[in-house]
Amino acid sequence: MDFLNNYLIYLIPVMGLIGIIAMATKAAWVTKQDAGDGDMAQLAGYIADGAMAFLRAEWKILSYFVIIAGILLAYSGTTVATSSPVIAISFVIGAFLSAFAGFLGMRIATKANVRTTQAARSSLAQALRVSFTGGTVMGLGVAGLAIIGLGSLFIVFYQVYVVKVAGSSVNGEAMAKALDVLAGFSLGAESIALFARVGGGIYTKAADVGADLVGKVEAGIPEDDVRNPATIADNVGDNVGDVAGMGADLFGSYVATMLATMVLGREIVSHDAFGGIAPVLLPMVIAGLGLIFSIVGAAFVKIKNENDSVQKALNIGNWASIILTAIATYFVVQWMLPAGEFHMVRDEDASHVIKTGIIPFTKDGVFGSIVVGLIVGTLMSIITEYYTAMGKRPVLSIIRQSSTGHATNIIGGLSVGMESTVLPILVLASGIYGSYHFAGLYGVAIAAAGMMATTAMQLAIDAFGPIADNAGGIAEMSRLPEEVRHRTDNLDAVGNTTAATGKGFAIASAALTSLALFAAFVGVAGIEHIDIYKADVLSGLFVGGMIPFIFSALCISAVGRAAMAMVEEVRRQFREIPGIMEYKAKPEYEKCVAISTKASIREMVAPGLIALITPVIIGFAFGPEVLGGLLAGVTVSGVLMGIFQSNAGGAWDNAKKSFEKGCMINGEMHYKKSEPHKASVTGDTVGDPFKDTSGPSMNILIKLMSIVSLVIAPHLNAHVAAPTAMKHEVKKEVKVQALSSPIIKIEKKA
Amino acid sequence: MDFLNNYLIYLIPVMGLIGIIAMATKAAWVTKQDAGDGDMAQLAGYIADGAMAFLRAEWKILSYFVIIAGILLAYSGTTVATSSPVIAISFVIGAFLSAFAGFLGMRIATKANVRTTQAARSSLAQALRVSFTGGTVMGLGVAGLAIIGLGSLFIVFYQVYVVKVAGSSVNGEAMAKALDVLAGFSLGAESIALFARVGGGIYTKAADVGADLVGKVEAGIPEDDVRNPATIADNVGDNVGDVAGMGADLFGSYVATMLATMVLGREIVSHDAFGGIAPVLLPMVIAGLGLIFSIVGAAFVKIKNENDSVQKALNIGNWASIILTAIATYFVVQWMLPAGEFHMVRDEDASHVIKTGIIPFTKDGVFGSIVVGLIVGTLMSIITEYYTAMGKRPVLSIIRQSSTGHATNIIGGLSVGMESTVLPILVLASGIYGSYHFAGLYGVAIAAAGMMATTAMQLAIDAFGPIADNAGGIAEMSRLPEEVRHRTDNLDAVGNTTAATGKGFAIASAALTSLALFAAFVGVAGIEHIDIYKADVLSGLFVGGMIPFIFSALCISAVGRAAMAMVEEVRRQFREIPGIMEYKAKPEYEKCVAISTKASIREMVAPGLIALITPVIIGFAFGPEVLGGLLAGVTVSGVLMGIFQSNAGGAWDNAKKSFEKGCMINGEMHYKKSEPHKASVTGDTVGDPFKDTSGPSMNILIKLMSIVSLVIAPHLNAHVAAPTAMKHEVKKEVKVQALSSPIIKIEKKA
Repeated sequence: MDFLNNYLIYLIPVMGLIGIIAMATKAAWVTKQDAGDGDMAQLAGYIADGAMAFLRAEWKILSYFVIIAGILLAYSGTTVATSSPVIAISFVIGAFLSAFAGFLGMRIATKANVRTTQAARSSLAQALRVSFTGGTVMGLGVAGLAIIGLGSLFIVFYQVYVVKVAGSSVNGEAMAKALDVLAGFSLGAESIALFARVGGGIYTKAADVGADLVGKVEAGIPEDDVRNPATIADNVGDNVGDVAGMGADLFGSYVATMLATMVLGREIVSHDAFGGIAPVLLPMVIAGLGLIFSIVGAAFVKIKNENDSVQKALNIGNWASIILTAIATYFVVQWMLPAGEFHMVRDEDASHVIKTGIIPFTKDGVFGSIVVGLIVGTLMSIITEYYTAMGKRPVLSIIRQSSTGHATNIIGGLSVGMESTVLPILVLASGIYGSYHFAGLYGVAIAAAGMMATTAMQLAIDAFGPIADNAGGIAEMSRLPEEVRHRTDNLDAVGNTTAATGKGFAIASAALTSLALFAAFVGVAGIEHIDIYKADVLSGLFVGGMIPFIFSALCISAVGRAAMAMVEEVRRQFREIPGIMEYKAKPEYEKCVAISTKASIREMVAPGLIALITPVIIGFAFGPEVLGGLLAGVTVSGVLMGIFQSNAGGAWDNAKKSFEKGCMINGEMHYKKSEPHKASVTGDTVGDPFKDTSGPSMNILIKLMSIVSLVIAPHLNAHVAAPTAMKHEVKKEVKVQALSSPIIKIEKKA
Repeated sequence: MDFLNNYLIYLIPVMGLIGIIAMATKAAWVTKQDAGDGDMAQLAGYIADGAMAFLRAEWKILSYFVIIAGILLAYSGTTVATSSPVIAISFVIGAFLSAFAGFLGMRIATKANVRTTQAARSSLAQALRVSFTGGTVMGLGVAGLAIIGLGSLFIVFYQVYVVKVAGSSVNGEAMAKALDVLAGFSLGAESIALFARVGGGIYTKAADVGADLVGKVEAGIPEDDVRNPATIADNVGDNVGDVAGMGADLFGSYVATMLATMVLGREIVSHDAFGGIAPVLLPMVIAGLGLIFSIVGAAFVKIKNENDSVQKALNIGNWASIILTAIATYFVVQWMLPAGEFHMVRDEDASHVIKTGIIPFTKDGVFGSIVVGLIVGTLMSIITEYYTAMGKRPVLSIIRQSSTGHATNIIGGLSVGMESTVLPILVLASGIYGSYHFAGLYGVAIAAAGMMATTAMQLAIDAFGPIADNAGGIAEMSRLPEEVRHRTDNLDAVGNTTAATGKGFAIASAALTSLALFAAFVGVAGIEHIDIYKADVLSGLFVGGMIPFIFSALCISAVGRAAMAMVEEVRRQFREIPGIMEYKAKPEYEKCVAISTKASIREMVAPGLIALITPVIIGFAFGPEVLGGLLAGVTVSGVLMGIFQSNAGGAWDNAKKSFEKGCMINGEMHYKKSEPHKASVTGDTVGDPFKDTSGPSMNILIKLMSIVSLVIAPHLNAHVAAPTAMKHEVKKEVKVQALSSPIIKIEKKA
């Protein structure tokens, strides 16, 4: 036990390494599966090439960004006493690993897709095995890299800034500096995540919408028809958006959640066997456990017969990993955390306790918060499924409203999306209230960490969807027998459900993580309140609330514009290249790929910069309290817009899919190509950018803005009396000096 | 001057009375205009009867509500020391006057419509004169009744609670009680406004969407064709929604703005010639001046020739009243307010000043805030016009996106709506910051009061639109000559623009009013902060942010459902009544009127109750600070959703209208019945409930929830330590007792 106590900190990256080894084994297995014959291999080759072309173009732009941002960070680190230029290195590593995680996932996905198609020629069980193993590679890669990266950097910074420095305190400024530098890692990861998510999201939907509008609607050929010039771009999109984009996204979330908990954990005075840093290590240990048990859970995901339920197999694997992780977490919490009440350093000044309302808590409370997090995640998934699943009231209402045309279908979907915010918000508000009740602000953070523990498994399930979707596309384009397409459709349908529930889960974790980051920001900035009763803070709240709207507007209008360019190109090819329709001439796939690539790279810049720059401007111009108002506004409005858009999109999608089997409206059956079906296609097309571009970007937007604020927080501390136009400025300044940072105060005492 | 000083308080209702006299004169003039011949008169009769049938049905339900709410208010007034059962009387009067204002406007509108049609047979100038005079009757009626009601009640309550009570203070509890009772008037007005706006909004759009979907799209007959069974319901809708609903809405806003300023004015220590209540009287005096100068401005609205610009005439009238009011306000502020610095009573405790950041200010500052309010209102109108006007980038982008179908048109409109939140929010945030800078919280309130001063003129311009719309409908249904329709179309087009700018103005005033009410609430509830850094307050913020989403969902889904019922009824009549299409049989108009009436009355209840009950539940269960978080969430999210929905709807509408004259897309002209035009009709239909049901209801939602909170605030003060699950509850309680209400503290000092 002593050995474990001393070396636990080193065990964390080892757990990450175990994940990477498991990943490599599974990747090797996927690679050696049969990749099918000539036609299939050729199409799969186009897709893989297109995906790599996009990643290369994206990386080129992002490398400029990383260099510039890195220099700025290094410079700012040298100018502020509480910071360090090392943060730039941390930032670059985070950015690199995030991009690498996306690359790994996409690489395996573009191999697994055609192998899944080939496997589907023999059986559903084998097809599930290949596609899910592909997804697992992604999940393990993301989680493994995150834990190795964060764990190793923490070891280094902990040694350099705390252990090696005489008189440093694990609750004090030394540890704060170590974690501030570590925040650079999260900033790098989340920045790349945002660009990858937005760029990938624009790519995939521009291609999808463009392909559908001309292909399905005008030319009357099926989705994924080899004659459609945009079909390759569409399939590339699934990989760069739903796989690489999502991988970078979850890498960022996973790291941000751990980091926020660590920053708050630093403030906990803990007399434990780990030199007082058990609350800091805990989130990483839980993540490591979650990774290990995700490997275990993945082994449960299998079916035997054609009629076995794929959804059930995924559920069993998911629940196995969650329950095992929860049980292990209970024992780890009991082992790592000491008995008795915890206090946070900012509580030590008694008057401060009353003002911030931070409360003492116990290790049982910490476990209670984790349970709250798991319950919130589960409920969010269930609610999301209800609002987007076929056969349930919301989707049925959209189907019914399709019978009176395009407009009522749209009204129906928008109203379902708006309505669907109610229960998630109530769950989330209760979750905040509950986890805070059990363990204060640390509880809110550790609840998010608990939810995110089995990210590897969640991501495996999420990534399996687009692989299956691609596999279906390849089957269709290669004109394989009906039964093959039937099997891939089965997988694809399950993938649609898991995509929707995954989004519900992601938004809940993002909300909790943002709150944790928000709390960490308040601590680091050394402010006492964020009082929305003040005119300037309230103005910040308004501006913050507006950002998700302009961000969404930029994303969906980018999709709209790029899709129109795609439509025009496809129309041109149909017009100018004779023989496409008779399979006599090959369309120029690469032109469509180029349109999506160029558009997405160009259009991802503006929303990305808004997220990065706004907190910096507001923070330096108006001080940390107004920035706090801004963050609260972004978080509330972002969560709402995220849920609204994702669920509206999901519900429209499944309303359209319902017509494939036929829908009964007012006693009459309607099938594909009926008028109500056409109306439902309109809804689905509107929903595409909602659910795959702007909706899921909301998570990253709110987290990234919180992380930026956290990183600049020590700088703001120095600038807090920056000139504002307010008359009470002078008084404010006096107050700030009188208070100073609670952390410094404690250290003086010690 | 002494005389004026002593009797100013009595002059306020007299100014209201002048407005009512002017209204009566104008109403008599409209009534004696030629109402046209048999066919026209018959159709106008149907419309007037349908409108009255709706109002009767609505009043029946609302009278139950008023009775129940009145009893609850009276009861709660008897249980809390700081309140009075008289509030119930105040509430009933407010509700009655609000309903009466709507009735007056609608009555004159259903007379002015057919008289405008008749006038349009001779000249555009005469048609404008009749329709605008009709609108003026509405505007003067609303403003006059509001000033008479609020002014008279204030005189009574001021006498009863302050003047007649020995030892009472105009800054203290006695005046607080008088204003608390007066808040009942505003609560009554705003409650009726909400139901009228939502009910009317559902009515008008159910009829409009239903009529369009079958008439224009399926049967291929023009809008307002006498053969369409839903056409009468559609025209009734313009009156009950756009006239009666809007009248009650602006009556409520106008009163709420004055009230909020008065409540904050009570806290200002003013050594003036009016017994210290100049800051309380000021908003009512400004409103009275605005009313008088609206009468003057209305005289400027006239044209001579057929080619004169109607928009220009309206603008001249509008600017005349605004500028004259602004000049008069400057002198009134100089006269009424004393020299030197003002302080608010809650500032007297020095530590408190620093905490709330409330600042001393001068009378020049007060005028500065009013100017800020006028600038904000003007900018909001300009921005709104830009985003919704024909020929400007936003609408052109939607037109271009119509060329690739329904879905891209919808994506285009949604993205325009979202984008259109940016500038208004920046203007609003700057306005809050600026008006606060000039005169603290009182400045924010008086800025709103300045904006709302010329409500009579604003409303005249707003109400002229639906009158012209109806006049056009009657011309179409009566198959009058082309030139008549041409003239009414000219007026209608201007009406569309004024409707859009009116909405921008309304949302800005609602936002400022809500902030003023919010500030008033904080004062009355006696809390120090609304700290979003606390978990429970943050939860409140989330829940508050969600309410505009569920409210909008209920409104637009109600329209969707009612429109479908309308579609089925119209289809049934076309099927079962032979000869409609050949003008041989008369459709059963009354059945469609009944469907709209029933649906709107039924569906307005749920959203209304959400607005009324949520603050009560949150306030009593979690205390005033969490309620403050809820209000902030509702305000931010409501303003955003209001702007988004109103502007998206307006832009879609004008994109569709652009096709009437033909649109150039990629070098090709497209007209009515082209594919892009069909796509634009879909957008317009989706936009209908956005811009006329849910969008404009957001204003009332946020104000009503703030007023409810203000009314229950004294009760919460007693319940502030209500049990919550938080561990720090005990500490909180101690804190609250130690602080007590700042107002009471001051009085003890005095």
